[in-house]
Amino acid sequence: MKKLLLTAFEPFAGELVNPSLEAARQMERIDFPDTVVQLAELPVDRYRAVEMALELIRSSKPDIVIMLGEAGGRYRVSPERVAINVDDFRIADNAGNQPKDEPIVEGGPVGYFSTLPIRAITDRIVKAHIPAAISNSAGSYLCNRLFFSVMHAITVEGLGAKAGFIHLPYLHDQAMSKYPDVPSLSRESIVEAVRIAIEVSVSSLAQDGACAAVEK
Amino acid sequence: MKKLLLTAFEPFAGELVNPSLEAARQMERIDFPDTVVQLAELPVDRYRAVEMALELIRSSKPDIVIMLGEAGGRYRVSPERVAINVDDFRIADNAGNQPKDEPIVEGGPVGYFSTLPIRAITDRIVKAHIPAAISNSAGSYLCNRLFFSVMHAITVEGLGAKAGFIHLPYLHDQAMSKYPDVPSLSRESIVEAVRIAIEVSVSSLAQDGACAAVEK
Amino acid sequence: MKKLLLTAFEPFAGELVNPSLEAARQMERIDFPDTVVQLAELPVDRYRAVEMALELIRSSKPDIVIMLGEAGGRYRVSPERVAINVDDFRIADNAGNQPKDEPIVEGGPVGYFSTLPIRAITDRIVKAHIPAAISNSAGSYLCNRLFFSVMHAITVEGLGAKAGFIHLPYLHDQAMSKYPDVPSLSRESIVEAVRIAIEVSVSSLAQDGACAAVEK
Amino acid sequence: MKKLLLTAFEPFAGELVNPSLEAARQMERIDFPDTVVQLAELPVDRYRAVEMALELIRSSKPDIVIMLGEAGGRYRVSPERVAINVDDFRIADNAGNQPKDEPIVEGGPVGYFSTLPIRAITDRIVKAHIPAAISNSAGSYLCNRLFFSVMHAITVEGLGAKAGFIHLPYLHDQAMSKYPDVPSLSRESIVEAVRIAIEVSVSSLAQDGACAAVEK
Repeated sequence: MKKLLLTAFEPFAGELVNPSLEAARQMERIDFPDTVVQLAELPVDRYRAVEMALELIRSSKPDIVIMLGEAGGRYRVSPERVAINVDDFRIADNAGNQPKDEPIVEGGPVGYFSTLPIRAITDRIVKAHIPAAISNSAGSYLCNRLFFSVMHAITVEGLGAKAGFIHLPYLHDQAMSKYPDVPSLSRESIVEAVRIAIEVSVSSLAQDGACAAVEK
Repeated sequence: MKKLLLTAFEPFAGELVNPSLEAARQMERIDFPDTVVQLAELPVDRYRAVEMALELIRSSKPDIVIMLGEAGGRYRVSPERVAINVDDFRIADNAGNQPKDEPIVEGGPVGYFSTLPIRAITDRIVKAHIPAAISNSAGSYLCNRLFFSVMHAITVEGLGAKAGFIHLPYLHDQAMSKYPDVPSLSRESIVEAVRIAIEVSVSSLAQDGACAAVEK
Repeated sequence: MKKLLLTAFEPFAGELVNPSLEAARQMERIDFPDTVVQLAELPVDRYRAVEMALELIRSSKPDIVIMLGEAGGRYRVSPERVAINVDDFRIADNAGNQPKDEPIVEGGPVGYFSTLPIRAITDRIVKAHIPAAISNSAGSYLCNRLFFSVMHAITVEGLGAKAGFIHLPYLHDQAMSKYPDVPSLSRESIVEAVRIAIEVSVSSLAQDGACAAVEK
Repeated sequence: MKKLLLTAFEPFAGELVNPSLEAARQMERIDFPDTVVQLAELPVDRYRAVEMALELIRSSKPDIVIMLGEAGGRYRVSPERVAINVDDFRIADNAGNQPKDEPIVEGGPVGYFSTLPIRAITDRIVKAHIPAAISNSAGSYLCNRLFFSVMHAITVEGLGAKAGFIHLPYLHDQAMSKYPDVPSLSRESIVEAVRIAIEVSVSSLAQDGACAAVEK
């Protein structure tokens, strides 16, 4: 039995929904063979989001951590390749934090690569006729901060989990109601993309070490 | 019993599919109450496309003509508001024609408004969580030429049909295989949008004169 | 001596500047041979903008009317091909008017083509290494309304002036301060594009009837 | 006297110009006080570009290395924050190489931050009314490879130079002739942005260690 922690964010920036949360909640209704999926709904708060995620990882000791977040304006599901050690928030988080050009971990490494099978995930999503592409930047907002912090903790504390971040476009209805000029994806496509990401990650873990973001 | 002519284009510009044709063919499988849907597959040929469409309109005398076409790069289903009297092709059609700044009908009017209920169609598509917006330009390629020519013939020949044009985004798989940087829509969304357009157009006709693109 | 009326709009939508006004004011410093350039600064008010422009046209009887407006988000100078008979404002004007799908002139024609030499203007701007392209839609906001209303008055009242509309992108500094994710043009490029448009329009008038938007 | 190495790339992807080379060549005509600017024109070849740059850095021992490259489609000058240890070429380089998901330096670090004063450079360019923004991704093509390789050599070999990468949009004329739908910048703006980057980098070096991409 594999344990998978799936994190998603609450709405922010005045939004009423967050595609990551909408998709994550649908995963609870799906039966993944030999896998227990635990859902964590994180606040859009620079400090509490990371604390909550790390507490869950330390206590639940998942085999896989898939973090989801919203990337408004993108029109492809974006498995992220790398997290970088910088906080540079273009807008404030829900708690009012807006750091500029600060390191996340003072003296820490420049970055961490995703340890999810991002190429296989991307290929499988595209094969399902859903737009997807590996992204080389998770930005420098809370999504990147969570991604970096989780990879750092897993590495430094030797937790052994495979982990990574996937950015999701706006939902069609979300975009149409607020940003009609911005591309988006259907709810069905986003939900299916997350389902595929879980399935491929679990199956890749079963086949062991095929998870490196950069194949060697 | 209402007669509806649905036109779509073959692939062009090196494409293997055309979303208009993909969607139109699905309409044959749908049962629209009290409505006969006739499908016309038009070549991407400046002259033959218009000739074929006009012959069908003259012989079948449809109550409604909905013309579909591809608008690569758009990410919303776009009921067109107006056809203009100009041919200005940025690329050649499949027969090699590439007119520049020529009138479609020498001495004809500057434009024709769609007589489909474009506001109601758009609102209903958006309500179904599919991106849509009225467009104020059908371009100056073959789509606009067909749209203008059909509106002109209906007007000049007194054919009495309600008619209009709807532009469709690329299909997800079409975009992903050739233009991965371009937004697109799912096949399900495009098919459903066309179904709604037919349903609303037929129902509007039944309620009579609610079809004007510009409400008065 | 030719008389040219150049109209521009005041800032709107919360902006502090309007590229059309910034460019138009620079034209007063330029000496155009055998040409008197009159500048009209129009309010972003559905009714007063048109009234002011028409009064000036009727009293000054210009040979050429070039109307300028802002098209935020475009990155090319856009000589407009056609004005259409519809008011459909996505945002309210500065006086709070926000008509939806209304005709500008009840019972009027569907549209008017620009009578400026838009192809020559566009080619000359591009030749000066400034992005430009003929646009097939001036939208359905106040820019299109002014454009349509002026063309209609010139036609109906037999005023004989050549007239047309040119949309301008945001200025770089305007975009950077408020919409950093939106493309824009340099002040120098926008000013030079407007200067070229005036020069080409005046010179075309001198050569007489070469002004048709649709060459025949 | 400070030594500054400025690298630029030859045209690629079927282009006739490369904005980095066009801008770099203009720098030779500018007198930078107390600074010698050396220009290196690099081939778009996965191996030779890096070799040539490293040889020059080892022999000339510059105080500052500013690497320039083209980022078609961007409309802002983009000082890059970070180089990552991956080669994933979406198109082949001019020598036909097209690696996929390979590390640049086997066993090397995940990334390097720019050691140029990227915030100060960006702010100064914006102040000059030229669009600019710090970018969190230099991509995974040759630009990133050069950037990573140079930072790695400087670090591992203790060369002590401050170094970083700046991506430049298409030139207006370049875009208009080939990609008319893609935003671009004027030659004047691109040249001035590079001049500012050099000026700010040199002046920052004089003020000593204020160069960190992530302020501490």
